Amino acid sequence: MTTTSARRLRLVLSQLVEPGDPRLVALLRSHSVGEIVDAAIHGRPLSGSVLPEAWRLRAPGVLDRTAALAGRAGQLGVRWVCPGDDAWPERLVDLDATAPISGTTGAPLGLWTRGTARLDELVARSVAIVGARAATTYGSDVAMDIAGDVADAGHTVVSGAAYGIDACAHRGALALGAPTLAVLACGADVDYPRAHAGLLQRIAAGGLVVSEQMPGQTPTKGRFLSRNRIIAAITGGTVVVEAARRSGALNTLNWASELGRVAMGVPGPVTSQASVGVHQSLRSGQSMVVTSGAEVIEAVGEIGATDATLEWSPSTALDELQRGSRIVLEAVSARDAEPTEVIASRISCATDDALTVLADLCAAGWVEQVGSGWRLRRRADLSPGQQGHTVAR
Amino acid sequence: MTTTSARRLRLVLSQLVEPGDPRLVALLRSHSVGEIVDAAIHGRPLSGSVLPEAWRLRAPGVLDRTAALAGRAGQLGVRWVCPGDDAWPERLVDLDATAPISGTTGAPLGLWTRGTARLDELVARSVAIVGARAATTYGSDVAMDIAGDVADAGHTVVSGAAYGIDACAHRGALALGAPTLAVLACGADVDYPRAHAGLLQRIAAGGLVVSEQMPGQTPTKGRFLSRNRIIAAITGGTVVVEAARRSGALNTLNWASELGRVAMGVPGPVTSQASVGVHQSLRSGQSMVVTSGAEVIEAVGEIGATDATLEWSPSTALDELQRGSRIVLEAVSARDAEPTEVIASRISCATDDALTVLADLCAAGWVEQVGSGWRLRRRADLSPGQQGHTVAR
Repeated sequence: MTTTSARRLRLVLSQLVEPGDPRLVALLRSHSVGEIVDAAIHGRPLSGSVLPEAWRLRAPGVLDRTAALAGRAGQLGVRWVCPGDDAWPERLVDLDATAPISGTTGAPLGLWTRGTARLDELVARSVAIVGARAATTYGSDVAMDIAGDVADAGHTVVSGAAYGIDACAHRGALALGAPTLAVLACGADVDYPRAHAGLLQRIAAGGLVVSEQMPGQTPTKGRFLSRNRIIAAITGGTVVVEAARRSGALNTLNWASELGRVAMGVPGPVTSQASVGVHQSLRSGQSMVVTSGAEVIEAVGEIGATDATLEWSPSTALDELQRGSRIVLEAVSARDAEPTEVIASRISCATDDALTVLADLCAAGWVEQVGSGWRLRRRADLSPGQQGHTVAR
Repeated sequence: MTTTSARRLRLVLSQLVEPGDPRLVALLRSHSVGEIVDAAIHGRPLSGSVLPEAWRLRAPGVLDRTAALAGRAGQLGVRWVCPGDDAWPERLVDLDATAPISGTTGAPLGLWTRGTARLDELVARSVAIVGARAATTYGSDVAMDIAGDVADAGHTVVSGAAYGIDACAHRGALALGAPTLAVLACGADVDYPRAHAGLLQRIAAGGLVVSEQMPGQTPTKGRFLSRNRIIAAITGGTVVVEAARRSGALNTLNWASELGRVAMGVPGPVTSQASVGVHQSLRSGQSMVVTSGAEVIEAVGEIGATDATLEWSPSTALDELQRGSRIVLEAVSARDAEPTEVIASRISCATDDALTVLADLCAAGWVEQVGSGWRLRRRADLSPGQQGHTVAR
């Protein structure tokens, strides 16, 4: 059996089984993907196990459908990534050892991805930021801030694509030019919600939009629940920013906790219904209090350090720079002197504000003025405290 | 040695030692109060121990000063309560077994009290609610709400008398006609801050204003710190509502935690500086998240149940009454029919509002109209579900 056919077999089986069906985990403990596919298509018996009837009923024509789907994938802008591929994130296997929550569990047979980033690299250091659709201004601001800080520290922000906290988490990271990952409950090619078509496009441009569901599939309540386990499993930790009493975000937090990932909650006013679910999880001890991106990074730190493929080595001097100054500094080219307007537009800030910060950075010896433009000072010119600064992203 | 002289000896010693001096705890392990007083006044050696020089320097004339103070106490409106008195709260002894925090520890030699309530009964079921002077509107509202619910459940609210959260905690309970306890860092007869003279008067009218300091003493930073240990030790648990990074309220929480009392924190917006200290204590695991008075009562429940000298046995039917209705109901006399105005003024509510509630309570069979007044229906007249209702406060 070649590697290609192993990938193809997983794709075939993924069309027979609803993602997250716990019966698949059980069957895969004693049978290969090929044996299960054979049993479904050709009726070959599985020693000691019974194949669910629903899978057999979906089997007729599945090989043709798979071939057609594989042929159409490029057109749809999606790719099939699965175990055995270099880009497969190994940590998803933890799902195979976790008891079902809301009737779903197990590592996905594969994921459909839309975008050009490499999945394993994208999630090697990553944090899920999820929460209420009906977010308050407070929650939205906090989600964007934390996402910005998490991205700034070199971790990928992972979320769904819902209104509210999910969208804010992506926006907070995208605003810094950092890639993000969206995990959908519908096909990876489907823009859901419709109003987020632009957001999903921007996510796919630098990061990835992924789904366990077949291309073209629509989201259902059950698919949101099974999707949540992927968000929790693919990241080093999950932060919930605002969640009402029965919010789906609490389901993701539950998964994070069961999977041994870092489960975190951002408190809010006790007078806000949008924070009730977060406070419940904090009170139960299921999640820990975090109040900033720095605290999130600290909490997932060890996991990030172990899996890290991206390096970020700030010097002490750089640490001391205000966050605003760092954002501006990182937008300054080391090669070409560029005008203030260009640098300002790169980070979406007002030209006047950028100018003020650049003048300060120049005075402090980080950048130099060349004609009407700004450029990073060369390393040889830096003071010893500043030389440790390496932007390796 | 008579009981009277034991009380007087404590009063003498309390004038030689700064409250909370940890050296006193150490000396009292091997010497009696009388031996320490003798050593200070007459220079009698303490076997195996050295008397602090500062105590000896304050000794000349202390017996005369004590007699004068005892004579003046009635005029000042304060009383000396100490171990051995029926009104002494036994749980303060826990301080003798607790290591110093900020250089202070030990059970107080006694407490000066202003007001007519009995100290031990007042604190038998009690919760400290403390927090930032520079409270936000959010914190002030939450403090008043929690204090109201705590008082409504029959627990005494204990706090300092500072601006901000302390004052709101008292006000939330006083608004329901419930007694509260203020522990001061100055003399119990001193109105500090001046602007709270009226508040302190209202506290003393139904509850108590107490202090370990001599009457007339002014507050100092050190006295606030030693005062905090009394607040934490005299209650079943401490709730912090808003505390900035280095707030004194965190010191009280630290005491509660060290004393094995329930340490609680009310979260707030992570964007609020006034909640930073609370979130720090929650993150460190020193305190637990609480978001309502009901959660506070639940947390201190076992301690309250064990120490309870006051009984509150609401029936199921009473439980079902809205809180507003219960407040009105508890203001209605069982003996004399009183006009709506009298009942309304007793609970500081508008006459029209009281009338609406009284009419409902009458329809439900809780009260009866006699002439132009209202009176509780006699127990024999109550339905079985209502008979369990006993207001024992």
